[in-house]
Order: sequence, then C-alpha cells, then structure tokens
Amino acid sequence: MTPLVDRLAIAGVGLVGGSLGLAVREAGLAREVVGFGRGAENLEIARRRGLVDRATRDAAEAVRDADVVVLAAPLGACAALAATLRPHARRGAVLTDVGSAKAEIVPALERAWAGVGPVVGGHPIAGSETSGAAAARADLFRGHRCILTPTTTTDRAALARVRALWEGVGARVEETSPEAHDRILAYVSHLPHLVAYALAAMAGDATVEGRAALDWAGTGFRDTTRIAGSPPALWRDVALANAAAVGAALDAFRAALEEIEGRLAAGDGPGLEATLARGRDARRRLDRS
Amino acid sequence: MTPLVDRLAIAGVGLVGGSLGLAVREAGLAREVVGFGRGAENLEIARRRGLVDRATRDAAEAVRDADVVVLAAPLGACAALAATLRPHARRGAVLTDVGSAKAEIVPALERAWAGVGPVVGGHPIAGSETSGAAAARADLFRGHRCILTPTTTTDRAALARVRALWEGVGARVEETSPEAHDRILAYVSHLPHLVAYALAAMAGDATVEGRAALDWAGTGFRDTTRIAGSPPALWRDVALANAAAVGAALDAFRAALEEIEGRLAAGDGPGLEATLARGRDARRRLDRS
Repeated sequence: MTPLVDRLAIAGVGLVGGSLGLAVREAGLAREVVGFGRGAENLEIARRRGLVDRATRDAAEAVRDADVVVLAAPLGACAALAATLRPHARRGAVLTDVGSAKAEIVPALERAWAGVGPVVGGHPIAGSETSGAAAARADLFRGHRCILTPTTTTDRAALARVRALWEGVGARVEETSPEAHDRILAYVSHLPHLVAYALAAMAGDATVEGRAALDWAGTGFRDTTRIAGSPPALWRDVALANAAAVGAALDAFRAALEEIEGRLAAGDGPGLEATLARGRDARRRLDRS
Repeated sequence: MTPLVDRLAIAGVGLVGGSLGLAVREAGLAREVVGFGRGAENLEIARRRGLVDRATRDAAEAVRDADVVVLAAPLGACAALAATLRPHARRGAVLTDVGSAKAEIVPALERAWAGVGPVVGGHPIAGSETSGAAAARADLFRGHRCILTPTTTTDRAALARVRALWEGVGARVEETSPEAHDRILAYVSHLPHLVAYALAAMAGDATVEGRAALDWAGTGFRDTTRIAGSPPALWRDVALANAAAVGAALDAFRAALEEIEGRLAAGDGPGLEATLARGRDARRRLDRS
C-alpha cells in the first residue's frame, strides 16, 4: 500500500511534533519522516527515540522533496519558520500547523506559502505541561480531537490529506473556521491557562505568619494549577494571537466569579450553592462526554 | 499494647470520616470505631466495607462511652451536630473535627462542648472531588498534611492525643492558629475551588456558532476544573465560614489576573512572558516540594 505521505517534514520536534512523528512512523503513514529543529540535543533525542527517520538543522535538507510540511514550533515562530522553509520547498507541498490559535496564523501562513502550495490550519487538542522530544509519545493524539480550520480558499484535496494524517494517528478530526476555533479555545484552554498562571503566582507570593501558603497546597491546588507548568513563551504567543477572544472569555469568567463573590459577600447561602452547582453541573457534563 | 483510643465515634462516614475509620481500624489505633450518620444506605456501605465496627443512626448509641468524637460532617452542620451529640457524650470526651475552615468553627465547637470535654480543631489536607463511604480509602491521609489548630485554651493532652491519631494514619501533622490556617487555606484551597467553579460555569455557558465550547475541552481544562466536581454545599459552607480571608485571596488573585490582562492588552510580549513565568516558577516550587 502506498503511504499517505511520501516525505513528511516536521519543523519543531517537541512534544507535539515529536509525538506526531512517532505516531506516523508507527502507523506507517509516511515513507520517511524528517525532523527539523534548532537544538542539536533535542534533535538527537528525537533521532535516538525514533520519533523521526532523519533529523537535521538545515532548512533545505529538511523540506527537500517533502510533500507535507508540519509546523510544530511555538505559535509566534511559525510565520517566520514558514518563510525560512519556503525557498527550499517542493512545488505543491502542503503546509499545515498545530498552533493553539488560528485566526491570525492561518492567513499569515497562506501569505508565506503563496506560490508554493496549499495551507491547512490544524490544532490537535492534546498535550501536557511537559515539553521536548523526550516527552513525546505515540498515543498523544489517540482519542483526542484535532480541529482543522479551512477557509473559503483552502484546497479540498490538501484538507482531506491532512485529515487522513490526523485520523491515521487516532485523532477525532473536526472542522470549523479559524475564528470559531479561537473563540471556543479561548473559553476552554487559553483563558484557563492564564487563570492557572495567575492562581499559581498569587499563591506563590502569599505568606502568613512567615509560612509560605504553597506549603499547604493539596492535590486540588496541584491539579488546578498543573497547566501553569507549561512554557510561558508558548502561552504568551497564544494569548497575544487571540487577544480579543481571550478578553471576551475573561469578561465572562469575571462575571461568573463576581456572581460568586456577590453571594458570598451577602452571606447568601442558597444563592451561593446554586451558583457553585452551575459550575459543578458543567463539570459533570464534561465527565460524561 | 493498649490502643490510643478506646471507642472512637465518627459522626459523618463520608470520604474523610470513612477513610479515617478504615485507616484507624487497619492501624489498630482504637478498640472500636463507631460510625454515626443520617443516611441508612451510606452507613450500610460503611459497615459492609469495614470502615467502622458498628454503624448507627442513633446519637446516644453513637457517642456512648466514646473517648474521642470526630465530626466529619459538612462544615455548616458541625456545630448543630456537636449540640446533638453533647447530651449523650461521656464526661471528658475529646471532640475534634476535619473542617476546611477553622476560625469560626473552633470557638463554636468549644461553646457546644463546654462542660463535656476538650476540643481540638483539625483539618486533614486530603480529599478529592468524590464523596461518600464508597469513596473512602485507608491511605487517603498517608503523606498528606493534617493541620491542628489549638487555641490558648486548648487542652495539651487532648491535642497530643489527636496528633497521635493523625500521625497513626500516616499524616504529617502541623499546628497553627485557626486564623492563620484559614488565611493560608483561602489562598491554596478555598479560592481555587471558587475559581474552578467559575471557570466551569463560564465554559459551560459558552457556545460558538451553535457548538458548546465544552465539547473541545482538553485534559488541561479537565484538570483545572476537576475540583469543581466537589459538592457545592460543602464549599458554600467553607467559603461562608472564611469569607474575609477568601475575599483577601480573591483580591490578590484579581491583581495577578489584571497584571496578565494589562500586558495582554498592551501587546507587551516580554512583560506577559515574565508575568506567566512567575506563575510557572511558583508551580515548579510545588513540584519540587
């Protein structure tokens, strides 16, 4: 059987890029997976762990004859990365990405890749606060959603190919516009990350009678702030690339928090319980889904 | 060897009370553990699972000849529960509790138990969003902190006995004033719970182009809001019993969030990264501890 992709180039062999490489190799979806990155040490880990067939720090070598190129670098670096790869890309090569915000980056990639080949925005909703090739695993995407964000100009054959790639590594692919993607992710990912960072910073600063508040943090606090262990540069990029939608989610969050605060200040037990129950019910819907 | 406690009465055989009973029985810390509660079904689970030696819905039967009585009911019910048990308590019986807020409840229990015996406020920092006797486990407290909150009038022998009980089930006991306890817990537990409820409610309400935002929640959101699955009545009680300290923590959290928001609105990448890094650093300190 002919593999789905002949030569797959992955630019950025971290947790997501490395996991994709490993999963693609294990599923036999590409004849060859080439990893591109700047860090020699990380590339060596990727090669040694078999996340890629070949690893290189040379842009020309990385994308030469690649029919699909995946950008798996931090969001803020992707447009420049595409411009770096472009002169070496084969005509018709499909460019896709894994960024957590899409409305800004998809048009930027379309501009950077114009005259080369089609662009398909993508976002696998999988990850963890870990990073680097050492953290990659073949099952990272299995059972998780991957959102593709075609625009009116997106090439349908390229879209189908990128969809098949993600489905091939076990993801449940859905499609939406870049704008709708960003508004949804602001609510369930981008703002929650900022909230976790703020909670961790607040508690980290707090001392009472000389004792650090953090000393008495339990498993609840650990879970609630786990994603604050994520690389700050990564979420800086995402927040800046989706500032308007994050701002809207922040307004909605603040309103929910103020409802709690108001009932607490009023000593309104039944009202407070009802408000908390709304959150509990939402969380339960998530457990059932 | 004489056990530490002759007859231990546990009022409220849920996750915490039931786990304490099981751990005490497994460690042989009491000659007999008696469980008291209102729900016949839950008591039957507790009895069948061996969390207690005996289970009863009768207050007199529950505390008769008990030398230590543990209140493990929701915080808001504890003062009334102590008053219910009081007429049947043996003179000298030690009363302790497991409530998550202490400054309000400890004096209330001291009043309710006056003339009976000593009171020692306690709070094992262990738990989960699950509840009921079915969720109890013997190792719930192992390696976790248990904070005891003596006041100037607390009986030292009773304090030592309650300490030995918690140490006997594997907890790391620390002591502080009820007020300091409540201020610390507001930062690392009470406010984080309210934030998790608010996040879950906010995301639960959000729809974009007819799609529920919650549909695309990933593991990060699940972790961040896990504690929003906790019983609302329980955290209503805690928040109301610690409203001032929760308010102070909320102000500090809001300030941390506003710092992020301000840098985001200004498009200040380096500043935003530095702010997020403060949260990440605090979270890492927690991982190392």
